[in-house]
Amino acid sequence: MAKEKLYGGIEAGGTKFVCCVASGPSHIIEEVRFATTTPDETLKKAVQFFERYVSAGQIKTIGVGCFGPLDLSPHSATYGFITATPKPHWSNADVRGTLQRSLNVKIAFDSDVNTAAVGESIWGASRGCDPSLYLTIGTGIGGGYIKDGKPLIGLLNLEMGHIRIPHSRELDPFEGSCPFHGDCFEGLASGSAIEKRLGVRGTIIPEHDAFWELEVDYIASALMNYILTLSPKKIILGGGVMQREFLFPKVRNRVLELLNGYVSSKTLLEHIDEYIVPPGLGNQSLPCNWKNQPTTLDSDRESLLIYIFPAT
Amino acid sequence: MAKEKLYGGIEAGGTKFVCCVASGPSHIIEEVRFATTTPDETLKKAVQFFERYVSAGQIKTIGVGCFGPLDLSPHSATYGFITATPKPHWSNADVRGTLQRSLNVKIAFDSDVNTAAVGESIWGASRGCDPSLYLTIGTGIGGGYIKDGKPLIGLLNLEMGHIRIPHSRELDPFEGSCPFHGDCFEGLASGSAIEKRLGVRGTIIPEHDAFWELEVDYIASALMNYILTLSPKKIILGGGVMQREFLFPKVRNRVLELLNGYVSSKTLLEHIDEYIVPPGLGNQSLPCNWKNQPTTLDSDRESLLIYIFPAT
Repeated sequence: MAKEKLYGGIEAGGTKFVCCVASGPSHIIEEVRFATTTPDETLKKAVQFFERYVSAGQIKTIGVGCFGPLDLSPHSATYGFITATPKPHWSNADVRGTLQRSLNVKIAFDSDVNTAAVGESIWGASRGCDPSLYLTIGTGIGGGYIKDGKPLIGLLNLEMGHIRIPHSRELDPFEGSCPFHGDCFEGLASGSAIEKRLGVRGTIIPEHDAFWELEVDYIASALMNYILTLSPKKIILGGGVMQREFLFPKVRNRVLELLNGYVSSKTLLEHIDEYIVPPGLGNQSLPCNWKNQPTTLDSDRESLLIYIFPAT
Repeated sequence: MAKEKLYGGIEAGGTKFVCCVASGPSHIIEEVRFATTTPDETLKKAVQFFERYVSAGQIKTIGVGCFGPLDLSPHSATYGFITATPKPHWSNADVRGTLQRSLNVKIAFDSDVNTAAVGESIWGASRGCDPSLYLTIGTGIGGGYIKDGKPLIGLLNLEMGHIRIPHSRELDPFEGSCPFHGDCFEGLASGSAIEKRLGVRGTIIPEHDAFWELEVDYIASALMNYILTLSPKKIILGGGVMQREFLFPKVRNRVLELLNGYVSSKTLLEHIDEYIVPPGLGNQSLPCNWKNQPTTLDSDRESLLIYIFPAT
């Protein structure tokens, strides 16, 4: 047992951390969850969880899918840092470096949405579709774009949740919840925005409430922009807000209305129900071996995909 | 002379066609320009221009950079067609096929903005920057995104000029000029939109006219969306509207205001004057040998880059 080959994985979310150790597909050895408080406290808990596996020589690499915004440029002095986040205490937190120095193992590091996007493209709803887009509409809104099998990272990590979209203050006087941009897409349509606007969580707003027409319009506007800019072959909508399944047909119809026949693609015009879809992995998360086989685990978030490289 | 190795190139624009034959860098043998009327008449003129070079065996390939929207999927039955365009007579025009059948040579076909984007990335302002974005703000608005040296084409060709952006009808009651989307980015900020809104061409609107604040806001909103979605390492703004050079500093400042420190990139925060730039090729066009050396020609449009493959 002491010599069994194990992989470590962390879903570093803005609300909670999930840490696990696994030996293979469907074989979780141990899993732990705790609230995301301060970086010091939270990362220390993660380190404590992995420490004995590391000292036993069982874990040589830990994969981390982290909330953002992040610096994901490997040559940057702040590679693996969270940059300017509304989440208190976490701006400029050195997540990757702290784990690396404390545990002295290789840390495979990417954003939570990029890991989910990769997972969906390998085993999920966007398998065989390249380029593809994974969007999570939850507490925040983030997107991962897979091109040639890899998450797109250019000058900086994608932050497509913060795009500017039309907002009629007549129909929706809410000023937006984003501390950086007010009424950007995330500021208008995220779970936090819904709660701040209406005083209740989106989960309990009835299906026929007029609010959903606004929400659908914001989501469809953003999707139209992504379609015209990124041209994905599949769009996956995950996250808490999209667990309200009645939103899917409404969003699809509104996207078609907005595009208004400008793009003549059969995929869009005739098969949009197969084009804008829920995550194929559902609520199953995927601590995976990035270069080899996946290690499938159960979890409560569709967006948990943890890079686990082979121990070297 | 009859055996000299020549290349053919067409800038198929919505206003005019430019056809040329060249033997090498700065060696234009012949060039002709004519108005874009109906597909029949316009393509016939292009064919007539090239015919004698083709029959003499001097031209085996013609590169075409064409206005859109286009079907650019090589496996599609309508590959090389213009799809749904506001330009009368040109919806469903088979530009590539007509040229190919009439001249029986290889046609290298891409959009006008993709050719310009490639040219800028090889010899122009975005050389060494990958991914990069070339945006033309002229009669219409279109963008080409270069990733790994090639124009991004996914499900369909990018049509990022038609994204939805905020539009305050209080500040700007203009309903937008896009026949498909009304007040999309192109419908609000293109040269046609300016002229339709104000009754005069943008070229004669004074620099201190209050209108430009609106225009700057629209352009900056779109750029913010592209930055957060595509993360280019360089953004080139070409086209007639951007020949009003005073717009550049205003657009840069507004982009920084809108981003509001959310992305912490030195390139953006400290060097935005080198990040959002005019075309490096200026008004010089580039009929080029796609796989070998460029053939530089003079022209009056910065966006003319013609693919000219080696005769095979």
